[in-house]
Amino acid sequence: MTSPRRAPGGFPVVGIIGGGQLARMCAGPATELGVTLSVLAADPWDSAALVVPSSVIGSHTDVDAVRAFARECDVVTFDHEHVPAEVLTALEADGVVLHPRPDALRHAQDKLAMRRRLTAAAVPCPAWAEVRDSADLERFADAHGWPVVLKTPTGGYDGKGVLVVDDVAGAGEWLTRVTGEGGTLLVEEKVTFERELAVLVARSPSGQATVWPVVETVQRDGICTEVLAPAPGLSEALAQRAIDVALTIAATLDVTGVFAVEMFELPAGEVVVNELAMRPHNSGHWSMDGAVTGQFEQHLRAVLDLPLGSPAARSPWTVMANVLGGDDEELYSSYRHVMARDPELKVHLYGKAVRPGRKIGHVTVSGEDLGGLRARARHAADYIEGAIRE
Amino acid sequence: MTSPRRAPGGFPVVGIIGGGQLARMCAGPATELGVTLSVLAADPWDSAALVVPSSVIGSHTDVDAVRAFARECDVVTFDHEHVPAEVLTALEADGVVLHPRPDALRHAQDKLAMRRRLTAAAVPCPAWAEVRDSADLERFADAHGWPVVLKTPTGGYDGKGVLVVDDVAGAGEWLTRVTGEGGTLLVEEKVTFERELAVLVARSPSGQATVWPVVETVQRDGICTEVLAPAPGLSEALAQRAIDVALTIAATLDVTGVFAVEMFELPAGEVVVNELAMRPHNSGHWSMDGAVTGQFEQHLRAVLDLPLGSPAARSPWTVMANVLGGDDEELYSSYRHVMARDPELKVHLYGKAVRPGRKIGHVTVSGEDLGGLRARARHAADYIEGAIRE
Repeated sequence: MTSPRRAPGGFPVVGIIGGGQLARMCAGPATELGVTLSVLAADPWDSAALVVPSSVIGSHTDVDAVRAFARECDVVTFDHEHVPAEVLTALEADGVVLHPRPDALRHAQDKLAMRRRLTAAAVPCPAWAEVRDSADLERFADAHGWPVVLKTPTGGYDGKGVLVVDDVAGAGEWLTRVTGEGGTLLVEEKVTFERELAVLVARSPSGQATVWPVVETVQRDGICTEVLAPAPGLSEALAQRAIDVALTIAATLDVTGVFAVEMFELPAGEVVVNELAMRPHNSGHWSMDGAVTGQFEQHLRAVLDLPLGSPAARSPWTVMANVLGGDDEELYSSYRHVMARDPELKVHLYGKAVRPGRKIGHVTVSGEDLGGLRARARHAADYIEGAIRE
Repeated sequence: MTSPRRAPGGFPVVGIIGGGQLARMCAGPATELGVTLSVLAADPWDSAALVVPSSVIGSHTDVDAVRAFARECDVVTFDHEHVPAEVLTALEADGVVLHPRPDALRHAQDKLAMRRRLTAAAVPCPAWAEVRDSADLERFADAHGWPVVLKTPTGGYDGKGVLVVDDVAGAGEWLTRVTGEGGTLLVEEKVTFERELAVLVARSPSGQATVWPVVETVQRDGICTEVLAPAPGLSEALAQRAIDVALTIAATLDVTGVFAVEMFELPAGEVVVNELAMRPHNSGHWSMDGAVTGQFEQHLRAVLDLPLGSPAARSPWTVMANVLGGDDEELYSSYRHVMARDPELKVHLYGKAVRPGRKIGHVTVSGEDLGGLRARARHAADYIEGAIRE
């Protein structure tokens, strides 16, 4: 393996395990800061491997590959949360500087561990339980009612690993599978919520933390389609409450780097924590164009233990819309139309092949008229997807 | 030579001849747009070669190397203006799409050609003449007075190739050298000006043009140290006049891509054209952070003949200060101080080794209080340079 070319002037190398779009979107900020990026990617055609010169091809589950990769880096962080515990342990034993640290990361990898720890810290969560069999599930439903939400404790994302069931029969297949493997499931009450919010925090090893404005996330089929920054009509009190919850989690779990707390806003004017992501997050993509410091620059600063930048919004509103894969594999020709229609539009595509429903990019637009911004972002995303042709 | 890895979805490859910081600063925007960048760099440690995976090492004066490089690109553009005419001619003969085109580029390469063409187009210029010997020079000074400004028609930048002389004796060495080579010099009147302005234009092959707000550039020893966007106190009429002059040049020379017109503001409320740069330009670095569309994204859009983005400012004021090399080769340790002192500061370093006076980076800061912004940008640049330590 050749070493990453480190810029002169004493600049460090930040290694990212995983070559997806989150690693890719660190490339621009790293270039500006003069920091060298190195990526461990599964495939040379991975999103980040296309744009980062120091891309090492290897699996995040291959202890030897990950250790060799990490030796060339001053700090190692993550594109995703799927690095196995034994790999993390080996890196720690090697003295690799990891952010977030494995002790923190475990709570984003394992939703049962997360629920246990947050509940112990009095962080508001939906009612939940660990279930081993149908008797456990019935007991939970007796207390909290049907339907309930079943989750696999590890490995889920974008709505995968989540199942809403109306009765024990609906959970049959999942229960059989998990029982067969000697595992357990997480069950949660199905929360009746007003909307979904997300709080994005950056926290450095020294303990400095910054919080971007609380955003509203709009989901379709378990996938985030749109983010409104800041969350419209959110009371100052509830925004502060949401931020307090996120900062409590950050401090409790000793999180380092950027992390996201997805929350439900309840009708009673309270929030409960839905999910954690211990990395830059889709709910923060708006910040690349809409905040003084975008989440990818901030993540680099945080894992390097540099002072954090201002997370303040640069416009009254920024709207982000995800571009999902449609039927059309050709994307570039849509540029002529969407750019001509909206000179203020910011387009971000990830260099990924189109697969239906796959997140392949996003657009943002900032300004003063929220309704207009939403329509413009939606139109551009739909047009690039190929869902509309005018 | 391996081909650049082109992202799926029909995205083009933009080739840049030259691996300096202007090519480097295209990398972030290219990543966001999904466009593949390929750079022909003289050295693997060149500023852009450090961050662009598809970096080919070769000289811009080597016809075969440049032709092989260009074959892999859909459009070729430039980091600098030093590509020889014979190389450009060979590329044109190969059918390579070049932006700016050689016919236009010649006017940024050759200051005599530029003065002739602008004067023919009635663009306001200082009085000028071509001089072959001391008699030519005396004749010019008789008409326009001493001191005068001597310029080598080709190859100058950042104050190099420019000499202010008080009499014929002062021009002796330059005249001897140029006469010995059978060449000529450009002489210009030494303009008494209020300040220096710059107008940055983007123009696409289809003829669409956008103009960023007119900026004031502050120079020290012929090197730009600071840019104020927009130019403070500039009347609307004179701003419009400066923009008209720049757009006239763009159309006259059929410029494509981003280009800059450096002007003197005269006491009489007129402008005259000082220099042209037919590429992204130091006077436009503020736009990366301060405008809806930064100059590097816009340059990519222009050379690809995509619709141009809005050049509108995002804040009342943005100040850019160049970071020049000082005595200290170590740069990174200054980050802790400047970032802690000013969380709104945007730092851009180019991965270049420190040499005294060399442009190695820049900082920007945006907001409402111009005086405060100038002090903050100056402080940060001076601190990173090592000129101050508090």
